Amino acid sequence: MTDATSGRGGVTSRRRGRPPRTESADTRDRILDAAREEFSERGYEKTSVRGIAKAAGVDSALVHHYFGTKEQVFEAAVEVAFAPALKVRDAVIEGPLDGVGERMTRTIFGLWENPVTRKPLLAIVRSAVNNEAAAAVFRRLVSAQLLRRIAGEIDAPDAELRAELAAAQLVGIAMMRYVIKIEPIASADPEQIIARVAPVVQGHLTGRYATDE
Amino acid sequence: MTDATSGRGGVTSRRRGRPPRTESADTRDRILDAAREEFSERGYEKTSVRGIAKAAGVDSALVHHYFGTKEQVFEAAVEVAFAPALKVRDAVIEGPLDGVGERMTRTIFGLWENPVTRKPLLAIVRSAVNNEAAAAVFRRLVSAQLLRRIAGEIDAPDAELRAELAAAQLVGIAMMRYVIKIEPIASADPEQIIARVAPVVQGHLTGRYATDE
Repeated sequence: MTDATSGRGGVTSRRRGRPPRTESADTRDRILDAAREEFSERGYEKTSVRGIAKAAGVDSALVHHYFGTKEQVFEAAVEVAFAPALKVRDAVIEGPLDGVGERMTRTIFGLWENPVTRKPLLAIVRSAVNNEAAAAVFRRLVSAQLLRRIAGEIDAPDAELRAELAAAQLVGIAMMRYVIKIEPIASADPEQIIARVAPVVQGHLTGRYATDE
Repeated sequence: MTDATSGRGGVTSRRRGRPPRTESADTRDRILDAAREEFSERGYEKTSVRGIAKAAGVDSALVHHYFGTKEQVFEAAVEVAFAPALKVRDAVIEGPLDGVGERMTRTIFGLWENPVTRKPLLAIVRSAVNNEAAAAVFRRLVSAQLLRRIAGEIDAPDAELRAELAAAQLVGIAMMRYVIKIEPIASADPEQIIARVAPVVQGHLTGRYATDE
């Protein structure tokens, strides 16, 4: 790590030239770690690029150099939480359609139960609820990248609404269990919840509705 | 309104004596209106008693005098949203058990679709997600006053968990439709959503599960 951009002072001289990817990867990761920590603890509005830079031990200019605006830092920071989520999506999509409800439920629960991925998820929820820029990121990532791809597997004219109703059941459980922590759902055995929720998710995705002709 | 406590200057002299309810009702209402506006626009953490007092045109001391701490102002402000919610609860409880899913879904939707009650609901959600004191208020009002009473009508050992899973479906829809505004669910016809969600809510509340012996 002798590259001029990897430390505190070297930014101004290299500001306009992107440093080679390999040499800067550590610094980028450190900034993203700090950003996830800040956004999940403080929410979007109270987090500043300066605070992220300080927590990462770099200059603010370096954060801007790599990521741009605060919104772009946020998007990059939470996108990492979506790397597993996109694997989820592939796991959900691949496999028989009559097991899609259980696969979707189980994988989303897996992300929330894992302390590593829970943090960026909390950051997304806490931020998206109070800030329109963060909400826009949420819509792009969750809606465009996750739900529409799941909807693409469902042969129904209202596939996107179905995917969103299924997601709403899981979002609501995440809110009550992990964010607001209402009992008894906050301490219930995950398997007990999955057993009850997977059929509901499946029903939203592939069930016949009374209103279907 | 000649009572000394109803204007800006009269507080100190009457500080320790509660003013007669009838004469102070207007001032209380004005403070609560301002509090709901502030909490729903800015969230719990960025709202101050001073800001509420300013918006209501009264002295901060008067706000403290009537309501106490910021948390107590918050609870009083959002409790008004729960007056209709408690009517909801009664409407949900009274009536045949096989229609409870539709009654619960329809009444919660009614609160969110009504601009007057939507504002305190947004204030509750935005605040509870980012602040533990507000989350505690949410737990007291939603969980203790609403869900446990609904659970009390259900003859099952896991009635509270059932009520919370049902509520989670509705909370998730509120998040996606009214808070984060993801399409197509944000613009979908409420009746279309109610038709799909009411049976799910009913199933959580009174359905037999595969895991039941």
